[in-house]
Amino acid sequence: MSLLVVGSIAFDNIITPLTEVKNSLGGSTTYISVAASHFTDKVAIVGVVGTDFGEENINIFKKHNIDITGLEIVPNGKTFFWAGKYHNDFNNRDSLATELNVFANFNPIIPEHLKKSSVVVLGNIDPVLHERVLNQLTEPKFIICDTMNYWIESRLNELLKILPRIDVLIINDSEARLLANEFNLIKAAKKILTYGPNYLVIKRGEHGASLFSRDQIFVAPAFPVENLVDPTGAGDTFAGGFAGFLYRKNDFGFDNLRRAVVYGSAMASFCVEEFSIKGIDNLTYEEIKYRYKKFVDISSF
Amino acid sequence: MSLLVVGSIAFDNIITPLTEVKNSLGGSTTYISVAASHFTDKVAIVGVVGTDFGEENINIFKKHNIDITGLEIVPNGKTFFWAGKYHNDFNNRDSLATELNVFANFNPIIPEHLKKSSVVVLGNIDPVLHERVLNQLTEPKFIICDTMNYWIESRLNELLKILPRIDVLIINDSEARLLANEFNLIKAAKKILTYGPNYLVIKRGEHGASLFSRDQIFVAPAFPVENLVDPTGAGDTFAGGFAGFLYRKNDFGFDNLRRAVVYGSAMASFCVEEFSIKGIDNLTYEEIKYRYKKFVDISSF
Repeated sequence: MSLLVVGSIAFDNIITPLTEVKNSLGGSTTYISVAASHFTDKVAIVGVVGTDFGEENINIFKKHNIDITGLEIVPNGKTFFWAGKYHNDFNNRDSLATELNVFANFNPIIPEHLKKSSVVVLGNIDPVLHERVLNQLTEPKFIICDTMNYWIESRLNELLKILPRIDVLIINDSEARLLANEFNLIKAAKKILTYGPNYLVIKRGEHGASLFSRDQIFVAPAFPVENLVDPTGAGDTFAGGFAGFLYRKNDFGFDNLRRAVVYGSAMASFCVEEFSIKGIDNLTYEEIKYRYKKFVDISSF
Repeated sequence: MSLLVVGSIAFDNIITPLTEVKNSLGGSTTYISVAASHFTDKVAIVGVVGTDFGEENINIFKKHNIDITGLEIVPNGKTFFWAGKYHNDFNNRDSLATELNVFANFNPIIPEHLKKSSVVVLGNIDPVLHERVLNQLTEPKFIICDTMNYWIESRLNELLKILPRIDVLIINDSEARLLANEFNLIKAAKKILTYGPNYLVIKRGEHGASLFSRDQIFVAPAFPVENLVDPTGAGDTFAGGFAGFLYRKNDFGFDNLRRAVVYGSAMASFCVEEFSIKGIDNLTYEEIKYRYKKFVDISSF
């Protein structure tokens, strides 16, 4: 009955308009699981790293009570590496390097005790791998799935095949437009829901996030962040907070999904205030609830 | 004790990705006053048109009980003309033609009975004209001012001179960044408030609007519009709904300003569903209140 996260674990080199960091801990699984761990101690991950990953990084997962039984360490392997550079507006970035390394042969094997995980977050990886994960689950209750332009363009059929099996698809506005082949986001959302998922979250970066069901819409603002340091991982952190809150409340109705979107946005706002996972590493649940209350304040009328 | 609107009145040729219209009624004064007229029958305008403006267009103001004592009709003059073409995303546009005509010599003279107007909306015109209007007011209670990139670049000193005399400055995100010379919108807002206005509204188009005071922030979503026809006048319509609601309630505290932002957004959402003022011409107050309720629904959590 865990909250299972399957995705990438990486080292990132990141250049922002203000500064840069090298070999910082990254990857979708990292951000999702650490964010979710603030809501429950039942988070588990399935992923792959090389021996270069080191005890120090493994200890970060342990510190957050994250079950790492499903973390494969490939002997003499090198961990997935990504380098990117943000434009001056922080809203766009260029990939400078993508070295899959041990991730190239990643085949997610779900440990026996995690097959009955109830809430599962499929991070942004090949939808073919998503399907393999889904096929190993015995008691899935709520499946959350992230994807990106790259998979929409190169693995559309595989993506469309899994969408009827998931509950919430989380993508950003440009991905929604691409997936639906429709510019208007309301029309795009309606079309994507016909592909199978019950809910769709469209992330709009600094402008917030929108949640769609077949008959309801919820629009959340983003928390106004004055000192933006690094947007890397914000979307994954959103998904982690969203999933963690839903798992904690064990309520998957639309009204609780609204609150989960706000908790996800709150977690993302902490994330972008620091590099790597620093912004979400040492948070207390009181601090998270306080930021949620600030969301209530800035959006009430 | 009227709600006075001073700005431009124009004929527009507009090309959108879907269709085009010619010589349609436009201009900031038009959108602001018609939007505000749904909240009160005390709206008055000061502006200038040519004899080509015609009885039919004058009747639109009359139909909305708008006081046109301050409307100057220049004999043999031609009304201000603007032509623009929207890009495929509807978010950007190119000006194809700007013919000032009678507007070139516009010198706003406030009729005697309107000098004691309590709420005044200064539409997007030369800040030198804004100052002349301010100098004629005897009992101003709440001043709302719009401006744009063109004036920030060409009339910065004149604009900075009037900002301490106004209550709310309404601009969009790129204008806020330009005026503050600061990319981060929170920092930009704080800086602009040091220039004098008590409140700042930053419009973010399809992403909503944010309201700032020196110690509070309110972030409103935009109403999800499925059938966008023409964004022209949306910002002015926002200002008109915002001003009209404040005038109607006669409450200028931050909490009522929050509601005014939502009413402004509701009016803007009607505006963009049709060309020219068609979307806000025949509305009932019940329809406006119903859209406000929908805003409550889409933003509650």
